[in-house]
Amino acid sequence: MRYEEYALEGRNVVLEAFRAGKTIDKLFVLEKCQDGPINTILREARKTDAIINFVKKERLDQMSETGKHQGVIAFAAAYEYADIEDIFKIAEEKGEPPFIILLDNIEDPHNLGAIIRTANLAGAHGVIIPKRRAAGLTATAAKASAGAINYTPVAKVTNIGNTIEDLKKRGLWFVCADMDGEVMYNLDLKGPIGLVIGNEGNGVGKLVKEKCDMIAKIPMKGDIDSLNASVAAGVLSFEIVRQRGI
Amino acid sequence: MRYEEYALEGRNVVLEAFRAGKTIDKLFVLEKCQDGPINTILREARKTDAIINFVKKERLDQMSETGKHQGVIAFAAAYEYADIEDIFKIAEEKGEPPFIILLDNIEDPHNLGAIIRTANLAGAHGVIIPKRRAAGLTATAAKASAGAINYTPVAKVTNIGNTIEDLKKRGLWFVCADMDGEVMYNLDLKGPIGLVIGNEGNGVGKLVKEKCDMIAKIPMKGDIDSLNASVAAGVLSFEIVRQRGI
Repeated sequence: MRYEEYALEGRNVVLEAFRAGKTIDKLFVLEKCQDGPINTILREARKTDAIINFVKKERLDQMSETGKHQGVIAFAAAYEYADIEDIFKIAEEKGEPPFIILLDNIEDPHNLGAIIRTANLAGAHGVIIPKRRAAGLTATAAKASAGAINYTPVAKVTNIGNTIEDLKKRGLWFVCADMDGEVMYNLDLKGPIGLVIGNEGNGVGKLVKEKCDMIAKIPMKGDIDSLNASVAAGVLSFEIVRQRGI
Repeated sequence: MRYEEYALEGRNVVLEAFRAGKTIDKLFVLEKCQDGPINTILREARKTDAIINFVKKERLDQMSETGKHQGVIAFAAAYEYADIEDIFKIAEEKGEPPFIILLDNIEDPHNLGAIIRTANLAGAHGVIIPKRRAAGLTATAAKASAGAINYTPVAKVTNIGNTIEDLKKRGLWFVCADMDGEVMYNLDLKGPIGLVIGNEGNGVGKLVKEKCDMIAKIPMKGDIDSLNASVAAGVLSFEIVRQRGI
């Protein structure tokens, strides 16, 4: 996958990017500039992993593509997405029944990265995420993936429910995690499979859940509601690994 | 467990916190600063378990949320720690063989919180962490635990290796995760057990590993090295749940 970097210039553009939760890798700010808008940007930046550099005006002018940086330039990062066909190709090359992890609106890029990492190590052939209302392949997700993002393809689709319908026609069975399901050890998770992981707060959406062939329950004791989404993805992925290995 | 403040800044605030017996995890003091009030704070701090760090002004400025640190910032435990006896008491009350998760220097408070959350849901009776070089029960860890911190006791010990020795005398068997171990499905993880999870970057330390009775391997494919620490803790914890349920 190709690493791209793009520049954001000007106070409003950069501030909006931070407020929209866009991952900024690097922030360049005019040194000794301490006015209100700049301080607001710095405050937002310090909440994130962005590297902050204070530089002279000449350096900013040199970096600027628009010539209108207003004392601030930010660099955002992004990785390229794969196609679903890339995922099937990897399964075919390995001579394995496809094992795909689908994320129904995972919002935290740390969770997305950790799940891509788990997917890689559990031998899943790829990850599918929705285009909207979900974490994308930002620098934070890439970092949390511990390099897995370079090996495990991630495809982006318009609608997870429709994608499940399409992939069923190609022989996949779908399992999602929910507390009202069957204990995971009692399900047959050996064949071509799509594992659906729900949103951090709300779990798997109703429409997506209805399309799944199986609902798997992780046997939980304890006093609270649910596992962290990336931990649940790990536990279920390795139950698939266990069953495939028997 | 009682909720406390997180960052404390300024001389009076920090000194009062020590005098009030508040649990301070870490103290950051401006280096080469030797005046009366600072020396008083240091004297109080040395009566406690607080880790004292002497740092440059830039570091303090960077950490400061108020901008008024006066050369001293303290981090208080967000939650109170339990005793190891509390953990055994819970196991006894439930009539279950003890299941304890020990963390060999987990540094990321998000991982600590996610592991406490997993411990609660996997039916572990408590978590043990080391005093030094590890994330403590900060507000970040509490948030990541999704409330589990209010139910699952977390004890803090000086030395994980010594604690393993002590707990062996009480009948616990210890298992740590490492790639050179035996596949986890082939181990007997049913009895009174301590599950040791290693540091994010370096895994389980050599001395701690040598004290473990079993080394468990999570069967991994893929191109990268290791799972996220909290995911690995989840996968191993639920293998223990699976074996105990059979």
